[in-house]
Amino acid sequence: MTGSLVIVGLGPGNPDQMTPEATAAITAAGDFFGYFPYIDRLSLRPDQRRHASDNREELARAKAALAMAASGGRVCVVSGGDPGVFAMAAAVCEAIEEGPEEWRNIDLSIVPGITAMLAVAARIGAPLGHDFCVISLSNNLKPWEVIEKRLIAAAEAGFVMAFYNPISKARPHQLGEAFDILRRHLPSSIPIIFGRAIGRPDETIRTVRLQDASADMADMATCIIVGSPQTRIIERDGKAPLVYSPRSDRGGSA
Amino acid sequence: MTGSLVIVGLGPGNPDQMTPEATAAITAAGDFFGYFPYIDRLSLRPDQRRHASDNREELARAKAALAMAASGGRVCVVSGGDPGVFAMAAAVCEAIEEGPEEWRNIDLSIVPGITAMLAVAARIGAPLGHDFCVISLSNNLKPWEVIEKRLIAAAEAGFVMAFYNPISKARPHQLGEAFDILRRHLPSSIPIIFGRAIGRPDETIRTVRLQDASADMADMATCIIVGSPQTRIIERDGKAPLVYSPRSDRGGSA
Repeated sequence: MTGSLVIVGLGPGNPDQMTPEATAAITAAGDFFGYFPYIDRLSLRPDQRRHASDNREELARAKAALAMAASGGRVCVVSGGDPGVFAMAAAVCEAIEEGPEEWRNIDLSIVPGITAMLAVAARIGAPLGHDFCVISLSNNLKPWEVIEKRLIAAAEAGFVMAFYNPISKARPHQLGEAFDILRRHLPSSIPIIFGRAIGRPDETIRTVRLQDASADMADMATCIIVGSPQTRIIERDGKAPLVYSPRSDRGGSA
Repeated sequence: MTGSLVIVGLGPGNPDQMTPEATAAITAAGDFFGYFPYIDRLSLRPDQRRHASDNREELARAKAALAMAASGGRVCVVSGGDPGVFAMAAAVCEAIEEGPEEWRNIDLSIVPGITAMLAVAARIGAPLGHDFCVISLSNNLKPWEVIEKRLIAAAEAGFVMAFYNPISKARPHQLGEAFDILRRHLPSSIPIIFGRAIGRPDETIRTVRLQDASADMADMATCIIVGSPQTRIIERDGKAPLVYSPRSDRGGSA
């Protein structure tokens, strides 16, 4: 009677960046749960059903998907990028832990995907080329003080940083505050990369120095990479510059 | 006359986890440079040429690939996982910066791939479900003191951590030292995940508590994920436990 639940990473948005494993998992499932724009990306058969919901409803979505799987459905939860990086895999695990015992018996699998920072980095060089941190700037689910502490720790230890969820209508000020914190702890010349909709027709990518970075350069679909003091920019005639963080890593000193 | 260079991420090793974009880039190229086991994974046509080399020779390999592209070749450099995460993209950028001006004119592109930590995380739940750091434990190219500083900073700020290059014949002691450092800064009960060859026939994955973690649980092909004090283990009858780091993130306190 118990069905199955697969959590699938769709990648950044370009169908050529979605794995064959993800495509096969979608073909095999009957019911699809996810945030509207991810559900909209799917090409489904008439016998497959869409259950789209808003992006603030991860836990409710996870519970609905688990309930359907527990009653025998072949259920798929979709995430943009990778489901394990600020996406649905943690919400499903949380729902299983809090939910009825039978949810632990569901045949659960997770299909990884290309997460946004990897697509942004690939487009511009190798900014994640040495040790890095990955931080969500959303304080919906954690105190801002935790984010502030992590930004300072990462800056002082010489990590490159990737920011997810940098800004939203409900959180207009966090990104500007994050840049202010970084300016107190890092050289003003370090490169900041703003990548949006990478691999899709409306792709944009832009690199500025920290001194010139501002929150209006991003929206909720932007992934931001903050270089370390060692990150370098290679200018090229007639081509976009390359940005990379060298493998030989002296650890934070400029 | 100038040719092209594409740096391709092959993913963790399961062909179903390699993107169509990567497959197309391999089909289009003529000469292939990379570490032996990655070159061995490729199914090439008779007109495509293999140039395999050892894993300590990244910069020499990058220069050889760039020289061939500059003289008109359609060249492909392959990396396991993602080329931007402790792999060939940074080495190629470094070679371009140091090399002749004409190397900047080469048509360069980078194809992202599923990096090891995403495949390991997907196999066990969502251990990377909140903010995390990604650290290479190799001190071939950075001082051990830098690694030590970053481990302490990451532990004190409540990050989950993923370790690449945890151990090798030339570096037998680093991983044990890293665990010793973590035991001084984190609760001994936090989960440590050892994932090896995920998606391949010889895949292994194992979770222990920090108090029981030891260096002999890993080899150079292992990716290790160190939970935060908030990371949870969900036991399941007759199934492997799930490990996840909750989205609601109180920031390092146990």
